[in-house]
Amino acid sequence: MEAKNIKNSLGIVEAKYYTFAQPPDELVLESGQKLGPITLAYEAYGKLNEGKSNAILLLHALSGDAHAAGLHQGEEKAGWWDSMVGPDKAFDTNKYFLICSNVIGGCKGSTGPSSKNAKTGKPFALDFPIITIADMVNAQKYLIDYLGIGKLVTVAGGSMGGMEALQWAASYPERLRSCIPISTALKHSPQQIAFHEVGRQAVMADLDWREGNYYSFNQPERGLAVARMIGHITYMSDQSMEEKFSRRLKDKDHSFKFTTDFEVEGYLRYRGDSFVKRFDANSYLYITKAMDYFDLSGDKLIRPGTNPDIRFLVIAFKSDWLYPAYQSQEIVRLLKTRGVDGTYCEIKSTYGHDAFLVEVKEQTRLIRHFLNNV
Amino acid sequence: MEAKNIKNSLGIVEAKYYTFAQPPDELVLESGQKLGPITLAYEAYGKLNEGKSNAILLLHALSGDAHAAGLHQGEEKAGWWDSMVGPDKAFDTNKYFLICSNVIGGCKGSTGPSSKNAKTGKPFALDFPIITIADMVNAQKYLIDYLGIGKLVTVAGGSMGGMEALQWAASYPERLRSCIPISTALKHSPQQIAFHEVGRQAVMADLDWREGNYYSFNQPERGLAVARMIGHITYMSDQSMEEKFSRRLKDKDHSFKFTTDFEVEGYLRYRGDSFVKRFDANSYLYITKAMDYFDLSGDKLIRPGTNPDIRFLVIAFKSDWLYPAYQSQEIVRLLKTRGVDGTYCEIKSTYGHDAFLVEVKEQTRLIRHFLNNV
Repeated sequence: MEAKNIKNSLGIVEAKYYTFAQPPDELVLESGQKLGPITLAYEAYGKLNEGKSNAILLLHALSGDAHAAGLHQGEEKAGWWDSMVGPDKAFDTNKYFLICSNVIGGCKGSTGPSSKNAKTGKPFALDFPIITIADMVNAQKYLIDYLGIGKLVTVAGGSMGGMEALQWAASYPERLRSCIPISTALKHSPQQIAFHEVGRQAVMADLDWREGNYYSFNQPERGLAVARMIGHITYMSDQSMEEKFSRRLKDKDHSFKFTTDFEVEGYLRYRGDSFVKRFDANSYLYITKAMDYFDLSGDKLIRPGTNPDIRFLVIAFKSDWLYPAYQSQEIVRLLKTRGVDGTYCEIKSTYGHDAFLVEVKEQTRLIRHFLNNV
Repeated sequence: MEAKNIKNSLGIVEAKYYTFAQPPDELVLESGQKLGPITLAYEAYGKLNEGKSNAILLLHALSGDAHAAGLHQGEEKAGWWDSMVGPDKAFDTNKYFLICSNVIGGCKGSTGPSSKNAKTGKPFALDFPIITIADMVNAQKYLIDYLGIGKLVTVAGGSMGGMEALQWAASYPERLRSCIPISTALKHSPQQIAFHEVGRQAVMADLDWREGNYYSFNQPERGLAVARMIGHITYMSDQSMEEKFSRRLKDKDHSFKFTTDFEVEGYLRYRGDSFVKRFDANSYLYITKAMDYFDLSGDKLIRPGTNPDIRFLVIAFKSDWLYPAYQSQEIVRLLKTRGVDGTYCEIKSTYGHDAFLVEVKEQTRLIRHFLNNV
């Protein structure tokens, strides 16, 4: 597929890299450890206006990256939110300057456990410090500083991206005019932690993991594939699986073997196998841990005595059982009790947690209307 | 804990073993393969009356066994349904003769993949044929024949046990007066298949699995533990995890390591580790496959033109998201369209799928009343 065939596409885009100048050449992390030098991979679409007042920061989820929209040269697959970002789309590149950066801890160009540790000349592996969502956001803030942007029109993302959006409001309320957390939560529930922990256990159970020092060898592919398969079950709904696969068999009859019988099994295996080709297992450990540590409940999102001038648009999807709507309602309830302007929208969808990536029409309507009023 | 300390306990019980006499020394399986000789481990409680008309067959779930109630000599943990089986309990041993047998494919005394293959003198491993729920029930039927019981008062079980109960009604309607399927389904949904498939993938990804030939070595403990951890998440509800663990930490603060931070993580690791000490990994593969193949939808539960004289009590629990109540409602709807007597009860509970093991009071009331009218 050529870029020109994608409706309202941004066409060919490419990643940029920003390595923190001195100061700060290091980031002091929430754990107290220091990390540096730090490079962030990012992409930007649209045009920053003269007043630098039309910038929006997009925030990716667990397995996402800086490539939010458009096509990379020679590739066929558009960015992860291409349906939402482009000319006349929800995030309209005719009006806004869109930025998306790969999180620290990631493996798509930003400094993470697979990056070279300047002190040893070898990949960090588990010498990479544990990072948090607040650390990711601190790194993003330096990128926004570097781009000379004082105040962002909004920060928006789904799932972990929604956590980052909330963290921006908590850490840098003066740098935002609005905030769009989607399919997310104020804190991970024990069930959400549990799903992540099982994924980490699957990775670490793989002998190829080698306590994280696998970079001269193979990835722990089998363990990481299992982790991803668990993830995919939680991203879909019971109903969307029924609609997509039902009990259809791959072949005419049961195999009476432990090979792939049902289409849903083939789908999971395919998803697991393709993930290990594009994602670093240690990044999986670090990023899931960051999400599990995330907790902006109580006084942490809106600090007492502050009255941040931020408008929130909180979006949830009915069939999302991984980040159930009640968690989005908790965000809105907290905003209301602190006198902060928050709009809650629960969108009908059968797509489960994946809905934030695929339910384009309703999200576009909501977000365009919201941004027009910011 | 001594037996006498357990209220209404059966006290010390012990397993019995029945090896099929000739004929049938072999079972022709649904796959067309033959399996034999077959041994079933079983337990029996209460007294079979002279007319042999007071027998009830209890049916265990995936990781269960023949030890439904009472205590084994020297052990502290009572059988899996001890709260429901005993004097004056839901299944009252003062009135009924209770039987429970380990399924074929299992690893608790019945013939399964860890049993010795008479033809080779070595454990079957993956030479064990794929079995189905119907095969399990066929084997149970020979045990009931052997015990001289013509007609069972009821067959009852939760989860896979509920599938077996339904299969009894489909395969041997003339041998039942009633049927109590609990927390179960007419067929596995793609989501249910998916959770099992990921568990199997976790086992088979473990190098210690050795294509099933691990009996001279270690079990694939890491893979089987991951599979069990996935299972445990699905057996609990979001709410019961919140009540039991919330976000409580094991230590005072975050570890900032990949060790156990949250209590829920410790719980899952403990559950995974203890499971591998008591359960055979290949049995896990075979039994989950049998559940995935299970499908009594359409005309398969009640064959057209038949009018089986069986009363059904179908029980579901509100917070069970692994076997959601709508699947039990589908059973009842099917019964109604075929003119078969079916009562549906949906019990309020926060325990999720585990509820059938722990919600004793309401189940006892329902089942005692139901059995009094059979």
